Amino acid sequence: MSASSSTKKSGSRMLELRGGLGAVPGLRLAGVHAGIKARKRDLALAVFDTPQVCASVITTNEIKAAPLLVSAKHLAEHGDAMRAFVCNSGCANACTGERGERDAYATARQAAALLGLEAASVIVASTGVIGVPLPMDRVQRGLERCHGQLEPGGKAAHDAAEAIMTTDRTPKLSAYSFYDDGKKYVVGGIAKGSGMIAPNMATMLAFVATDAPMSRAALQKHLSTSCDESFNMISVDGDMSTNDACYAFAPAAAGEAPEGFAEALRSVCLDLARAMVADGEGATKTLTMHVTGAKDVAQARAAARAIINSNLVKTAVYGEDPNWGRVIAAAGSVGAGLDPNTWSLYINDTLWVDIGAIEVLSEAEGHAQMEHASIVLRLDLGIGEASATGWGCDLSKDYVRINASYRT
Amino acid sequence: MSASSSTKKSGSRMLELRGGLGAVPGLRLAGVHAGIKARKRDLALAVFDTPQVCASVITTNEIKAAPLLVSAKHLAEHGDAMRAFVCNSGCANACTGERGERDAYATARQAAALLGLEAASVIVASTGVIGVPLPMDRVQRGLERCHGQLEPGGKAAHDAAEAIMTTDRTPKLSAYSFYDDGKKYVVGGIAKGSGMIAPNMATMLAFVATDAPMSRAALQKHLSTSCDESFNMISVDGDMSTNDACYAFAPAAAGEAPEGFAEALRSVCLDLARAMVADGEGATKTLTMHVTGAKDVAQARAAARAIINSNLVKTAVYGEDPNWGRVIAAAGSVGAGLDPNTWSLYINDTLWVDIGAIEVLSEAEGHAQMEHASIVLRLDLGIGEASATGWGCDLSKDYVRINASYRT
Repeated sequence: MSASSSTKKSGSRMLELRGGLGAVPGLRLAGVHAGIKARKRDLALAVFDTPQVCASVITTNEIKAAPLLVSAKHLAEHGDAMRAFVCNSGCANACTGERGERDAYATARQAAALLGLEAASVIVASTGVIGVPLPMDRVQRGLERCHGQLEPGGKAAHDAAEAIMTTDRTPKLSAYSFYDDGKKYVVGGIAKGSGMIAPNMATMLAFVATDAPMSRAALQKHLSTSCDESFNMISVDGDMSTNDACYAFAPAAAGEAPEGFAEALRSVCLDLARAMVADGEGATKTLTMHVTGAKDVAQARAAARAIINSNLVKTAVYGEDPNWGRVIAAAGSVGAGLDPNTWSLYINDTLWVDIGAIEVLSEAEGHAQMEHASIVLRLDLGIGEASATGWGCDLSKDYVRINASYRT
Repeated sequence: MSASSSTKKSGSRMLELRGGLGAVPGLRLAGVHAGIKARKRDLALAVFDTPQVCASVITTNEIKAAPLLVSAKHLAEHGDAMRAFVCNSGCANACTGERGERDAYATARQAAALLGLEAASVIVASTGVIGVPLPMDRVQRGLERCHGQLEPGGKAAHDAAEAIMTTDRTPKLSAYSFYDDGKKYVVGGIAKGSGMIAPNMATMLAFVATDAPMSRAALQKHLSTSCDESFNMISVDGDMSTNDACYAFAPAAAGEAPEGFAEALRSVCLDLARAMVADGEGATKTLTMHVTGAKDVAQARAAARAIINSNLVKTAVYGEDPNWGRVIAAAGSVGAGLDPNTWSLYINDTLWVDIGAIEVLSEAEGHAQMEHASIVLRLDLGIGEASATGWGCDLSKDYVRINASYRT
C-alpha cells in the first residue's frame, strides 16, 4: 500500500467526470429545504435502483450521534442489500438521548415507507448543532418533497450536496470513470465539511457510490484504505466530531473490485478531502504537507498530521511568515522518529533548510515562497523510504469570528 | 497521589510570599538588556551561594534546543553540585546545529569564569525564535552586566523574570513558605510562557528553588509530580516546544524533603502555570476544567486536556457561546472512556447538562454564565472516583494576529 497519491491521474484510463454522485448510474437523488435550517437546502435523499453492499468508516469519538448508531444497526442487519440514504444538515441529532435514537429510526422508517423499502435498508446521517432534537414534522414533510423530486444526474447530486452543507461555502462533488477489461465504471461522491475537521474523521460526511460490482468485504477494504489516505489526513482545526462518517455503496458481487477501482475511489476521496480543506472555515491558503524519507508510513503520517494541526504553523501560513522552526518543532513533538541530524525541508519544490538546519533561502526568499496561495512543503526525514501527505489550511482571524458566533 | 489541588492553601501553615525566586534565601539574581532583543531585558543570571542538587523536566520534543542538550550533560556530570543558571530570551538557539551547542557551552563557560565556578555547574536555557544563532558578543557583555548587578531579593527576581519573557505581558513569580518541625522553609520560582499557545510554544521555562535540603532523587520525584499536575495540564495540544524546561534547585542532603515541601512546590508550579494561561497570547478569558468521576487519573487528565486544547471550545469561550456540545465532543474524542449515559456538566458550580444530555440551563442562562471572565467547568464522567484539572484560555482574533506576525 502506498502512503499517498499525488499522481492521481496517472495510470490506466481514469477520467475525471462532472456530477459527483450523480455521475454514477443506478441512483436518484434530491436535496430540498425542509425547514430544519431557516433558509437553504437541509435534507438530502438518495435511492439506489438495486440493493447495494455498503461499507462505512465512522468517527472514533466516544460520543456518537444517534444516526451513526442507528445506521450501524441497519448495516449489521442489512448491509448486503442497502437501498437509500437520508442526510440532514442544521441539526446533528447528537447528545439527544433516547429521543435522538427514536428520531433517527423514524427518519429511516419514513423514507422507507415513501420508497416502499425496508427501514433497515436506509442509512441515516445528520450534521449541525449538537444537543438539539430533530424537528420530525419538518423532516417528514421534507422527505415527501425529496421523494417527489428524485432524479438521476449531476443537478440532483448538486442539490443533495448543497443540502448536507453546514458552514461550507461550496458543495463538494467528485467523480471518476475507469475501465477494466473494456468495461467502463464510475465512482462518484458528495461530501460536506469545513470546520471541526481533523485527522481521524472530524466533522465530515461523505457518501460515495460506484457501479462497479464487488463484495462487501472488498468495498470495506478499499474504503478504509482510501479514508486513511484522504479524510484522515486533513485538518482544519484539530477537532473530531460526534457525527463523522463516510458511507460507500456498490452493486453486490462475489470477490474483488474491478482493476482500477481502488485508484478511482482514492481520487474521489482525495478530491472531496481537499475540497474540505480549501473550504476550511476562514481559510485563505491551503497547505500540502509531504513527509518523505520516513522509517514507515505511520511515522510519516504522524509527522504530517502534527504539522497541519499546529496552530503556530497555521498562523505562520496565514501571516506568510517563513518560520520553518515551527514546522520542525511540530514534527518533533509527536515522537515520529525525527532525527535532528538528517532532516531537510523544501517549500514549493525549492530547498529551504538543508541537513544540519542550514537555512538555504534568505528571509526574503522564504517570505516570497510563503506568499503563494497554495503552500507545498516537503519534510524529508532522511531515515527511510516511506512517505505520506497531509492537507491543511491556515488559521485566520475569520476562523475565530466564525466559531465564536456559531449559535448566539 | 492526588490528581490536582485547587485547595492549595489548605494544610499546615503554608503562606504565599512575594518575590518569587527572590524569596528563597541563598541565591542572587540579575536580569539585564543584553541586546539580543531590540529593547527590554533579555538575559538573566542566578547564582547560588552553595552547591545545589538539581532536578529537571524537559521537553519530549525530538528536536531539543542546544541549551537543553548542554544542560543535560552538565547535570549528568555535576547534578549534585550545581551553582548557577543563565537564561536568555529573544533567541531559542534551537535548530542551530553544532554552532548552537558550541554557543551554549560558551555561555556556560563565560558565566562560570565570571563567577569563579566550573562550567559544568551552570544550567543554560534559551527562548525565542528558532533557527537563529545566539549573538555571542552580546551574551558575553550581558553576562558581565548581570554579574555586576547580582543581588538577593524580589526586585532582582522581578528583573530576571522580565528578562526571560518573550510574548509574555507580565513577569511570572511565585513563592510559598512552609514549616516542618518548627523550621521555616521557602520554595520560590520564576517562569515565562504565554501559556495558551503552549502547544509548540518555543517557550515554557521555569526555574524553581528552595532552601529545604533533600536528595537529588527526592527533588526529581517531587518536581516530576508537580509538573504533571501543573505545566503539563496547560499544554494546549500536548505538544511541547524545542526549548521547554523546568529546573529545580535545593541544598543537598540525604533522603526525603521536609514535610510540606511537596505541597509548597506544587503551589508554586500551579501559580506559575496558571499565570501562563492568564497571560495566553490574545486571551480574554481563562477556562478551568475539572474532570471528576473518572476511572483513573490518566483518563481524567486526557479528558481535561482534550477540552482545554479544543479550538472549538476555545472560540466558544471567546464568543461566550454556551455550546456545551463542543465540550462533550472534545472529551469524547480522546478515548478517555466517556460513557454517553453517565456524564453531567457544571458551569461555575451550576448544573448545566444533566445525565442523559438533559439541558438544565436555558440558552440565556448558559450565555450569562459564559460572560464570566473566569469560566470554571466541571465534567463529571460518572464512572469512578478519580479527578484532574486543566487550565486553558480562549482563542481570540488577537491570538491569530500575534502569531501571524511574530517575526516578519
